[in-house]
Order: sequence, then structure tokens, then C-alpha cells
Amino acid sequence: MAATAISHLHGKLSSKVCSPPISNPSRSFYRPIVSTSMEQQNKSYWAAVETQIDSHLKKSITIRPPTSVFEPMHHLTFSASKSTAPPLCIAACELVGGSPDDAVTAASAIHLMHAAAFTHQHLPLTDGPMQVGSTVEHVMKPNIELLTPDGMVPFGFELLGLSEQAQNNSDRILRVIIEISRAVGSQGIVDGMYQELVYAKGEGEDEQMVEYVCEKKEGELHACAGACGAILGGGSEEEIEKLRKYGLYVGMIQGMVNGVGKKLGSRLEIANKWRGLAIKELEAFHGRNVHQISSLLEMD
Amino acid sequence: MAATAISHLHGKLSSKVCSPPISNPSRSFYRPIVSTSMEQQNKSYWAAVETQIDSHLKKSITIRPPTSVFEPMHHLTFSASKSTAPPLCIAACELVGGSPDDAVTAASAIHLMHAAAFTHQHLPLTDGPMQVGSTVEHVMKPNIELLTPDGMVPFGFELLGLSEQAQNNSDRILRVIIEISRAVGSQGIVDGMYQELVYAKGEGEDEQMVEYVCEKKEGELHACAGACGAILGGGSEEEIEKLRKYGLYVGMIQGMVNGVGKKLGSRLEIANKWRGLAIKELEAFHGRNVHQISSLLEMD
Repeated sequence: MAATAISHLHGKLSSKVCSPPISNPSRSFYRPIVSTSMEQQNKSYWAAVETQIDSHLKKSITIRPPTSVFEPMHHLTFSASKSTAPPLCIAACELVGGSPDDAVTAASAIHLMHAAAFTHQHLPLTDGPMQVGSTVEHVMKPNIELLTPDGMVPFGFELLGLSEQAQNNSDRILRVIIEISRAVGSQGIVDGMYQELVYAKGEGEDEQMVEYVCEKKEGELHACAGACGAILGGGSEEEIEKLRKYGLYVGMIQGMVNGVGKKLGSRLEIANKWRGLAIKELEAFHGRNVHQISSLLEMD
Repeated sequence: MAATAISHLHGKLSSKVCSPPISNPSRSFYRPIVSTSMEQQNKSYWAAVETQIDSHLKKSITIRPPTSVFEPMHHLTFSASKSTAPPLCIAACELVGGSPDDAVTAASAIHLMHAAAFTHQHLPLTDGPMQVGSTVEHVMKPNIELLTPDGMVPFGFELLGLSEQAQNNSDRILRVIIEISRAVGSQGIVDGMYQELVYAKGEGEDEQMVEYVCEKKEGELHACAGACGAILGGGSEEEIEKLRKYGLYVGMIQGMVNGVGKKLGSRLEIANKWRGLAIKELEAFHGRNVHQISSLLEMD
């Protein structure tokens, strides 16, 4: 699918990423001045990328036997909140000269990992809900919401192992498997989710703790997405590291503005600082189509 | 570590696999006639293999920062019930001419997947415990028992991606990643666990359902272990398929005798039939050290 394809908007990601500028002082601080046509172009870009990932996932997770397993997997994959990490993976791939097709399997795997973590984080447990200020509707029994993500995570790795790139460039796919394993595992999302729980039980504002959760929970997933996209697009080591750092800041800003940090008094100031650092990482790509990937920083 | 190394017995696996013959009519039906010295040799073999896997896991899962994450990971990895699938992986590798070292990472990853599934299956949930007739002691809070396995599964894939074989033979490792993903995912353990829950809520004996659960839950993990060992040991496609089928029957027998089937009136008859089929798969390896791998069928 061409990156310029126009598609209808659907889901939370599109409406966030592509929303037109509004005169809201609380968010205008980090909105760069872009022309309406460029904004429209970016809007179409992210919508197209999101559609490509959704199509890939729908094609992969058909409702087939055992339906008792694949039906909930389908439901939980598409009902989880959208993350900007999967589309970032594709944008990073394109920025280093790759095709969106090179990164769509990795982007789909990243969404599966995110959706699995999201489901487990919102699972009602005997010692109280894990979620922090969430009102997720549970249409399935806890047992199913527990078991299904346990199938989604290996399914993501299976998709990578079976991908076309695994045949043609197994070293890149193995590197991507390591990147994703780390980002979603004990030193990434799991650590972030654990610390978020600890923070939620505490009192008052702890800026350092919030920054740590933002880094581990959203930051490292986006860092992984940036790095994986650059790896699959054939980027240099320097480009991979720059897009990893760019992703890290993009994710951390999201955690700060929309996630664990949203009640922190200093959130906008911190997010603005990270935005400056994120833009700095893109400087080396001067002359390329940077406005698309940098428009991720425009979201609220 | 030499396969003949003598090591002390510890854990459930060793005591099961290596227990001396006793005059119990209910189990003698599937105990082959072996000499005492061969039995001792097999006992030492499995103990050595288990020690090798434990050492590899202990080296990999050191208690390091974030300790809030790695301490429970260490605990849940080593407190989960032992499965014969990981040692089978090493035995299959050796049977096709590989070294135990070639398969120890895959065996460790298989144990991590098993331990993660075991923990989630025994997690206390609001709509009642998932476990069927189990009395697992919970030393950690449900939140931790939920989150930690979410780190253990990707950690297993990370170990594979970082293994020496990933450098030297990335195609084999990618194939192993696909094998493990399938066995522990939606069409393997997850399906088996779901169907076990459905069965546990029903009434009476349903032989077909029990056989299905045995195949999905223990069978496919052992099938995967046999296949992965053979892949990593450089076995032929025919050898890989034979060891996959051997593993399938080994696992199914365990599910029938010690797992979901243990209350089924016809369990011994069924297990005996599977044992015959398992031995048949080993016939092609005539002349090799078959007595070690076949001694897995001696367990009660």
C-alpha cells in the first residue's frame, strides 16, 4: 500500500494524530507551525499506515478453529487502545529508505504485544483492579482475558518468524525479535507496569517515578518501534540509534501527557523538553521526508 | 557438560523419571524390562540434563535491577512444576548427533514458557480459580503472578535470539522460534488450558475432550521440544518429524496419567496405546543410544 494512500479515519490513533489544530492553550505549546496542506498530508499518511497494519492483523488473525481461542484474540487485538508505536515502526522504515511492506509484520507484532499488555493491565484481579484510572469494559470473563494475551504474544513472534523478511534476511528479523522481546519484557513494559502500580498506591506527585514509568512503559516500546523500523528498512547503525531515541521521546511524551503523568503539574514543561530532544534526533535526516514522522509530536 | 555426568537429584522431574521400579500393578503395565545398570545410567543422564538446564536458567535469570521484576521472575521460574519437555529437547538433539550445548538455550526457553503458562493457570481470579485440582501455594500477589510471566515469555525468545546458534545458524533458531511460538500459543497450550477449563466445569468423563486437552497442553509442548532438539542437532527432516511425534505421545501420556486424564477410567489403556506409538517412532534410530530418550516413557 502506498504511503500516500487516502483512507478513512478510524480508531483513536487517527483522531489523535491527525486532529486539526485547535485553540487549546494546554496543548498548543508543542504544536509546530505547519501548513494546512502539510497537515492534511500527514493526516492521510498516518491513516494509510494504520489501515495497512489493521489489514495485516485482520488477515493474520482470522476467526478460525479453535474459535474459542481465535474469537477472543481477534476481539482483544482490535479493542485494545491504539498505540502510536506500530505506525512509528513503519514511518521509521520509510525514513531510512525502506518500503512500508518491510515493516508491516513488525508493526503488527508490536501492536499484538501492546494489546496483550493492555489487556493484562486491565484485568480485574482479586486484590483489586490493576488499571490506573481506567474504565475499560470487560465483555469477556477474566479467565479469557488472562489466557488470550498469552496466545497473542507468541503469535506476534510467530508472525515475525514466518515473514518474508525471515526468508530473505533472517539476521534482521532475529535482531527485531530481540528488540521486541526486550521492550515488552522484564526490563521494559513489565517493569513500567509494575512501577505504575507502585506509584498508583503512593501519595502525591513523584516526578522521577513518573518519568521512569513513562520511559519503561510507552518510551521503550516506541524506541523499539523506531529501531525495528530502521533495522528493517536497512538503516545504518547511526540511523537506527537516532530513530530509537526519537521513538523513546515520542513514547515518553505520550506517557507524560496521556498516561501516568497526566495529573503531574509539571507535565507540559517536561513533555516540551522531551519534544526538543526528539526533534534533535531527526536533524540528521535533513532533506528527507521528516515532516511525516515528526508529526507524531503534534498529538495531544 | 557430559551427558554421563553424575549429579544429585532435585526437583519433581528427576524423582519421577528416575524412580526405581516398584511393584505397583497400576504402573507396571508400561514399564519396559531394563537392567538395573541401564536404569541407573538413564537416571544419571536425566539428572545431568536437568542440572544443565537449571544452570543455564540460573545464569540467565540473575537477580539484578529491577529486582522488583527479576526476583519474582527467578522465583516463578524455579517454583513452577518441572516439565519433561525441556530435557526431551536436549535428548532429541543428542539422538540426532548434536551436542547438549546446542539445545540448552531452547530447552531453557521451553521451561520459561511452561513456567509462565503454569503460573497463569494457577492465578487466583475473581470468577474462581483456574486450576483444576491444584493446591499451588501463592507467595506473591496476583498482580505479580500476572505480570511476571508476561516478562518470562519474551525473555525466552530473547535468550534464543541472543544464543550462539543465532549467530552461527540463524535459520535454525528462527525455525525454533516458530516451533515454540506455535506450541505455547493459541493453537497449543492456550487452547489446551481453555478446553481444560471447559472440561473441568462439565460433568462425567469425556474421553475425547481429555485426549484433546492432553494433546494441546502437554503433547504439543513435548512435540515442539522433540522437533526443536532435532532441528538444533542437525537432524534430517524425517528425524525431526519422528522426534516431534515421539514427543507428542510422551506429553500426551503425561497429561493422561498425571494431568487432566488422571481420573479417567480408561487412562491406563489409552496411555499404553500411546506408549506403543511413541516407541514405534524411535525404531528408525535403531543402533543409536535410544534407551536414554525412551526411558522418558518409564515415568509414572
